[in-house]
Amino acid sequence: MSGERPIIAHAMGCPAGVAPELTARMLSDPEVTTAARIIVTGDARVLEKGARTAGVSLVYHSINPGDALPPGDGPVLVDLKHLDPETIPVGALSKPSGDFAMRNFREALALARDGVADVVTFSPFNKASMRLSHPFYEDEVVFLHEFLNFDGVAQEFNILPHLWNARVTSHVPISGVAPLITKANVLRGLRLTDGAMRAAGLDRPRIAVAGLNPHAGDGGNFGREEIDEIEPAVAEGKAAGIACEGPFPSDTVFVRANKGEFDAVLTMYHDQGQIAMKLLGFEQGVTVLGGFPFPIATAAHGSAYDIAGKGVAHPGAMKNAMLIGARMGAAHRGQSNA
Amino acid sequence: MSGERPIIAHAMGCPAGVAPELTARMLSDPEVTTAARIIVTGDARVLEKGARTAGVSLVYHSINPGDALPPGDGPVLVDLKHLDPETIPVGALSKPSGDFAMRNFREALALARDGVADVVTFSPFNKASMRLSHPFYEDEVVFLHEFLNFDGVAQEFNILPHLWNARVTSHVPISGVAPLITKANVLRGLRLTDGAMRAAGLDRPRIAVAGLNPHAGDGGNFGREEIDEIEPAVAEGKAAGIACEGPFPSDTVFVRANKGEFDAVLTMYHDQGQIAMKLLGFEQGVTVLGGFPFPIATAAHGSAYDIAGKGVAHPGAMKNAMLIGARMGAAHRGQSNA
Repeated sequence: MSGERPIIAHAMGCPAGVAPELTARMLSDPEVTTAARIIVTGDARVLEKGARTAGVSLVYHSINPGDALPPGDGPVLVDLKHLDPETIPVGALSKPSGDFAMRNFREALALARDGVADVVTFSPFNKASMRLSHPFYEDEVVFLHEFLNFDGVAQEFNILPHLWNARVTSHVPISGVAPLITKANVLRGLRLTDGAMRAAGLDRPRIAVAGLNPHAGDGGNFGREEIDEIEPAVAEGKAAGIACEGPFPSDTVFVRANKGEFDAVLTMYHDQGQIAMKLLGFEQGVTVLGGFPFPIATAAHGSAYDIAGKGVAHPGAMKNAMLIGARMGAAHRGQSNA
Repeated sequence: MSGERPIIAHAMGCPAGVAPELTARMLSDPEVTTAARIIVTGDARVLEKGARTAGVSLVYHSINPGDALPPGDGPVLVDLKHLDPETIPVGALSKPSGDFAMRNFREALALARDGVADVVTFSPFNKASMRLSHPFYEDEVVFLHEFLNFDGVAQEFNILPHLWNARVTSHVPISGVAPLITKANVLRGLRLTDGAMRAAGLDRPRIAVAGLNPHAGDGGNFGREEIDEIEPAVAEGKAAGIACEGPFPSDTVFVRANKGEFDAVLTMYHDQGQIAMKLLGFEQGVTVLGGFPFPIATAAHGSAYDIAGKGVAHPGAMKNAMLIGARMGAAHRGQSNA
């Protein structure tokens, strides 16, 4: 790698949705293109169609897969020449769209895996479309473990402009959550959250830890996980220099965080955070995957088939994802070189 | 009982907080006093002090405990003559304040129990203060079971102007929730919710039922309670004429309900609803207890010691509680006479 800017490998996303126009908007936004060098993996015809939809004109170097990056910091397209956008239905599922998105994603991940890029971002996928191409595609986290042959622990972060959310357990039935709320798991969540937020440029982030039970257990009356597991994890996190507090009742911790009292909430299970984040407008937020060998960021919203091709997709969430990705990429490069 | 208006027995609440001024505002609000006949249980000195704080003047009949109600529909004070407000600290805990609030509450409940009133409302209590008077005072639900010698099932409803929330389980550790999500329990929750909302004047309320697990179990991948228990309960509810739907993923059901798609959400556990309702401003909402021999309603906010005696307490939530109480009292009277 060369140059001072972090390098983002950006997968173009689902060609039947708003991804092409969002990708074009990213490449034509000077704030994005000066925050990082962007390498898009996709097809020039899809990208140019996206530019026409968005009403922007693009300047980039086009290269073939495997070519060396041209000098400088300007945007690059790795032109895979794998889809003529006139051959797919816009705003509808199709296998060619899924093939296109899967291929872009693999190419972008390979660039980061091989040290060409510091971070991966992607314009919105459509999981149903990707499943037509890759029947066992469950979600990004599962696919990344497979593709990278990675057996470590990764974590999803949901990010609003003023608030991060991470969770100790995710796609686990409620009946199976409590046994997983161990001191070790909570502490690992704290460390991953603190590390990811620092990498994204937040100095000493203030992390609130949610309790598991109603009223955070009410002193042991409604469950003992707070006393036996979560409190010791918070104490050990504090001792390790993490600005964490809690456990707090989960029905007021988001009200407090939303007012600015905390920068992040670490929740114990999926819906504890998702109920709050979705009410707070997370559809326009950012999702980051941390814990993998390099960071991955995307807009939280989907491929938006209903407004595809109309040029009306709001680029705010995608832009925030690129800017967070750029900061995490820079931090990742610093760590890799250290 | 006589007259056409429902009769509310209204307990004056904690004298050290905003309850006296709120009680005075209710008695001076023609919308409240025409919706129901209000019988306040308390002390004339505390009430008059509240009127001075609120800057209102009051017209009411004062009677002694046990006296027959005077004719007409005007407000009545059952003057218990049990507290000189100058003898207690304002904005602080004290046993005399707790004694006052407990006595008011018992008197109001007795009026409804004995058929003098149709419904009970109360200005905000302070539970910590009440525990100084009644050390085993856990909460209103537990106390009501004791006081009324009632062994049936009662349910708490949290109410915003556009949205009700009720829950199948409440103060239960997360580890104990799943076994309680049975078809029978969900169906009972649906019936109580539908009944309470109809009693409050909502014709054929649209009730969304939340799933228990992430993504409502994702077709059984993350738990089977949706398939085995909740879906059959919703089907049986529909067959019984309840306008219910679900189960829906709990992280989007409140977004949909908040946009007006549903009138109520029935949640499976405490924080599933409370996280959402508190973010949606439930501190200014209404709490109703249903399932007891008569309905009980109050403002969701607390005794607000920090602004007590200043005349700045917003009466909106208390007024909504009185108006909902009046409607439920009228419906209850209709049932009792049927």
